[in-house]
Amino acid sequence: MEFGINFSFPNGEVGMIGTALSILMGFRVNSAYERWWEARTIWGSIVNNSRSLAREVIGFTSSGDHASPDAQQMIHRQIAFVQATTRQLRRQQGAIFLRTLVSNKEYSILDKKQHLPNALLLLHMQQLKELYEKKQITDFVFVQLETILTELTNNLGQAERIKNTPFPVPYSYFSFILVHIFACFFPFGMVEELGYLTIPISLIVTFIFLVIEQIAVEIQDPFASKDNDTPMTTISKSIEINLREMLGEEDLPIQITPKTGVLM
Amino acid sequence: MEFGINFSFPNGEVGMIGTALSILMGFRVNSAYERWWEARTIWGSIVNNSRSLAREVIGFTSSGDHASPDAQQMIHRQIAFVQATTRQLRRQQGAIFLRTLVSNKEYSILDKKQHLPNALLLLHMQQLKELYEKKQITDFVFVQLETILTELTNNLGQAERIKNTPFPVPYSYFSFILVHIFACFFPFGMVEELGYLTIPISLIVTFIFLVIEQIAVEIQDPFASKDNDTPMTTISKSIEINLREMLGEEDLPIQITPKTGVLM
Amino acid sequence: MEFGINFSFPNGEVGMIGTALSILMGFRVNSAYERWWEARTIWGSIVNNSRSLAREVIGFTSSGDHASPDAQQMIHRQIAFVQATTRQLRRQQGAIFLRTLVSNKEYSILDKKQHLPNALLLLHMQQLKELYEKKQITDFVFVQLETILTELTNNLGQAERIKNTPFPVPYSYFSFILVHIFACFFPFGMVEELGYLTIPISLIVTFIFLVIEQIAVEIQDPFASKDNDTPMTTISKSIEINLREMLGEEDLPIQITPKTGVLM
Amino acid sequence: MEFGINFSFPNGEVGMIGTALSILMGFRVNSAYERWWEARTIWGSIVNNSRSLAREVIGFTSSGDHASPDAQQMIHRQIAFVQATTRQLRRQQGAIFLRTLVSNKEYSILDKKQHLPNALLLLHMQQLKELYEKKQITDFVFVQLETILTELTNNLGQAERIKNTPFPVPYSYFSFILVHIFACFFPFGMVEELGYLTIPISLIVTFIFLVIEQIAVEIQDPFASKDNDTPMTTISKSIEINLREMLGEEDLPIQITPKTGVLM
Amino acid sequence: MEFGINFSFPNGEVGMIGTALSILMGFRVNSAYERWWEARTIWGSIVNNSRSLAREVIGFTSSGDHASPDAQQMIHRQIAFVQATTRQLRRQQGAIFLRTLVSNKEYSILDKKQHLPNALLLLHMQQLKELYEKKQITDFVFVQLETILTELTNNLGQAERIKNTPFPVPYSYFSFILVHIFACFFPFGMVEELGYLTIPISLIVTFIFLVIEQIAVEIQDPFASKDNDTPMTTISKSIEINLREMLGEEDLPIQITPKTGVLM
Repeated sequence: MEFGINFSFPNGEVGMIGTALSILMGFRVNSAYERWWEARTIWGSIVNNSRSLAREVIGFTSSGDHASPDAQQMIHRQIAFVQATTRQLRRQQGAIFLRTLVSNKEYSILDKKQHLPNALLLLHMQQLKELYEKKQITDFVFVQLETILTELTNNLGQAERIKNTPFPVPYSYFSFILVHIFACFFPFGMVEELGYLTIPISLIVTFIFLVIEQIAVEIQDPFASKDNDTPMTTISKSIEINLREMLGEEDLPIQITPKTGVLM
Repeated sequence: MEFGINFSFPNGEVGMIGTALSILMGFRVNSAYERWWEARTIWGSIVNNSRSLAREVIGFTSSGDHASPDAQQMIHRQIAFVQATTRQLRRQQGAIFLRTLVSNKEYSILDKKQHLPNALLLLHMQQLKELYEKKQITDFVFVQLETILTELTNNLGQAERIKNTPFPVPYSYFSFILVHIFACFFPFGMVEELGYLTIPISLIVTFIFLVIEQIAVEIQDPFASKDNDTPMTTISKSIEINLREMLGEEDLPIQITPKTGVLM
Repeated sequence: MEFGINFSFPNGEVGMIGTALSILMGFRVNSAYERWWEARTIWGSIVNNSRSLAREVIGFTSSGDHASPDAQQMIHRQIAFVQATTRQLRRQQGAIFLRTLVSNKEYSILDKKQHLPNALLLLHMQQLKELYEKKQITDFVFVQLETILTELTNNLGQAERIKNTPFPVPYSYFSFILVHIFACFFPFGMVEELGYLTIPISLIVTFIFLVIEQIAVEIQDPFASKDNDTPMTTISKSIEINLREMLGEEDLPIQITPKTGVLM
Repeated sequence: MEFGINFSFPNGEVGMIGTALSILMGFRVNSAYERWWEARTIWGSIVNNSRSLAREVIGFTSSGDHASPDAQQMIHRQIAFVQATTRQLRRQQGAIFLRTLVSNKEYSILDKKQHLPNALLLLHMQQLKELYEKKQITDFVFVQLETILTELTNNLGQAERIKNTPFPVPYSYFSFILVHIFACFFPFGMVEELGYLTIPISLIVTFIFLVIEQIAVEIQDPFASKDNDTPMTTISKSIEINLREMLGEEDLPIQITPKTGVLM
Repeated sequence: MEFGINFSFPNGEVGMIGTALSILMGFRVNSAYERWWEARTIWGSIVNNSRSLAREVIGFTSSGDHASPDAQQMIHRQIAFVQATTRQLRRQQGAIFLRTLVSNKEYSILDKKQHLPNALLLLHMQQLKELYEKKQITDFVFVQLETILTELTNNLGQAERIKNTPFPVPYSYFSFILVHIFACFFPFGMVEELGYLTIPISLIVTFIFLVIEQIAVEIQDPFASKDNDTPMTTISKSIEINLREMLGEEDLPIQITPKTGVLM
């Protein structure tokens, strides 16, 4: 009896530690989820701005029913921008994927650049400037098109911000530490009373906390080439299909379908 | 007595697991609610942008008290856009619903397109271009009207983002698993002491957690053709009534009233 | 003693149910509060846009120190818009309140319309068009003034969204059910041990949960003509005072003061 | 022994009430904190818009290196706007503080107005109109400067919204009631068992809840002339220093330093 | 036995205090994290606006493939702005770092100013005015470029707001107090029963709460020159590399790599 009463104390404390940890982990999962959703929202915005850019270059620079060569060139370059942004966020080197999307002259410029998406936006700007100097667009339309380039610059920078800013170290590190201290401390405090029952109960309780920790780790870095990433390859392909359809191209690429439930 | 003390331990642990689970589910319900509300906000924004587009095309392209044929055509096409967006989000195929809303020429173009809402926005843009080329609107008004098309592109892309991005798999999957582990584990740990009382108590406790899980599942996918969806059909009908009233049409459609409490 | 130990188990479960319910209710109150605050923010934005519209029509359309008749007409119509929006959100029928604020010609148009605020914004637009056609404003100023009409369209649509979208049914309904199940279950589980003390304790605990539920219900529908509503009548009166002061009128209405602490 | 077991029941209930109350208070503190931070953000935005207004009037209306008299007059009026907004939010009467900041003619107009900040923005607008009529600014620049006045109108209205909208009565009132019921009920339930220990323990527990309640009350009304207010006097002084430095004035006011840790 | 039962009461209360404190600390960590993330977002926005400014000055002011001297001067001044903002937020005095980035004439003006970033934006504005007066840019482009200066003004003011607004004193102060009261009170209440076990258990529980408090303190002031700050030096260097690459400079600075895991 004495032992029982004696150890009902640590039991209460274990409960309190568990509660404190639950609350900390709840906020942690929530913050991680918000990063994940912000990343997805940024890519949604890249979809929207790509479509608007395509509609505007077709509407503002073409006459008649067909897209002008300038519109075609800018829309292909926009497909290149989306792919370059994907590669930039995945830290993939090389500009070879641009060959079919930009002119040879542009390719030779881009090949020397460190930051391809930024260089592609500058090329967009330079083409707009030429159109303006040839009086094919008014200064007013020039500024409207530049505004979409500004939006794309923002999307690019926002995605890079999430990529380059790890979750604050003390927050994620101490969550990790506390969950593991708890996992070690928990069965130790129970073993005398529960005996062989300690093993399944400890496993379940510990499993729950490790799972919550794992959920947070899984979704907090949405550009880390893991299963629950923002599916940048799929979104890029969707953008390409939309933009080529708007150009009136007929041989559209085929949408990516998930393999074993995972979209890249 | 021994059994009683022995099993008071798991009781504390069950409580702690319940608390941890409650907190996780609280955040889960909250995230699901935020998705649901964001979806509703996007459709509210489609209402606003449709009304503003109608007001602007009437104001900028008409002279005198009556809406010009161009305004009429664009507003009918905007009603088509809203319906096409609804069908796109419900994965419904076919363009036949467009027959009464767009011209035959446009219908034959749209019938070949994969992405109807996007194609309708491009037709809006091409009509604006024609108005600009015929000098019926200045470049400044052209850009102002295009800005609303950009807003509608954003609304469309935002709704597609929610539709195409399931709740992060580890988050929803492990919540589901943990609730069901808890539901199994809970009566097993109580049966020796509570005896026949185990059944009603287990049922109530388990019921609560399954209900919270169910709330989250119900509202997290607001475009899934379930009872608690964003009522896209009703909102589309409201937009149609507003826009036709603005055009001065007199034979307005009748608003949808809920059947057995559910709006589609 | 046996009964005591036997029933210490349900006690723990009651605690866990209470915790789970507390967390669910915490999120519920928070979501309800956010709706309430969003509603208030929308009306704050109507104040701001009404003042900016007044300042712009005075600045852009008047010459000299006095407001032009056009400015006066638009500002009076803006007062009408604010009152019409209030009545629309309260589902009040009739256009008779507009008599002193708009011309007879406009009154006869408005009297036939289903959606008065929207029709008033269209009349704003038509007056701007006339000013533009008479070359009293440039196309640039025309677009700037139209931008404020777009803002007001957004405010109107946002308020209607909150009005027309009840809190998600499963969320509010099951919260209600769970609180009442708990309230019934709670004294039943305690009566054997606590005896006559059951009554005051049950009352207090149940009271707390019902109060939290009630807070959420009170504030979740901020346009429902209840005590804690957004005080639309008071805000409308403030806008009227501000706008008439900007016009240079001297016989300003008197601000509404709260009766028994409640503002409408 | 009997009493001990008998009263272990209320003990569990007290714990549950404490948990429920903790969660309610947690959300309450959080909502109060968000109001406080929103208020600070609004004043941050007033800083930004004042600086941008100053930069634009210097850039758009001056020629050469020195600020034009018009720029000087508008920037002094902007300093007046910031001070008038501070006084409006503190419900301070009188316009005498404006004497050194605006011309005599403007002072005689302002002295009769109920709402000084709004009247100052209208004077800004009228000066811009004069500049436009004298062809010193184009219509394009006119609209750009008016856009900043719209931003300032929004800031003013947002601050008034927080000032005029108390925290929802049922939320703050019932939190207050529940904390005090709990504080009364808590020692009453403990006294029989704990004896003289009741006093310190009750004091600590009650103290914690009253402190949390007090934190919420302290920060929920950020324009109430209390210690933790938005430091409007200090921010106004900073704006004055920045704006006078931009004008090239050399005898700048001195920044306010905190007295006993409190900034007004 | 009597003591055991007697002291099971405080045990429950300690648990409740622990829960209340956990919830308070949960919200506190969350608010601190939001400040930290907002700071990072502001600097992300400085990156975006710097790139857009560079792209626009190159596109709007240059002809042919090379950046004009004006573009070069503005982009170097923008690099100076970013460094000056970093130093302003770190309260570092002196303008000597500007020598290589601005002309001698500008350096002599800046050297006398209290607020360097603000003065640099005014110099940007004055250069734009000169370009406009020399008719190298239209008034429309002038306003578009000024819009980016407004964005940079906002970023600067937002960062200063976070720097100058400490976390609300009662919130952080009482959290600190409560955690330390709890840490003192906790072992005192346990010592009689647990004996020598008090020491490790108290250490662990207290450690957890102090760690959570510490996480909040670490991340709540993101411009305080601590390890978990926004890495302003690194971001400034990235901006410099991007901007010089856009100018076509070939001898780019080298990116900073973390030393012992810490970026400044």
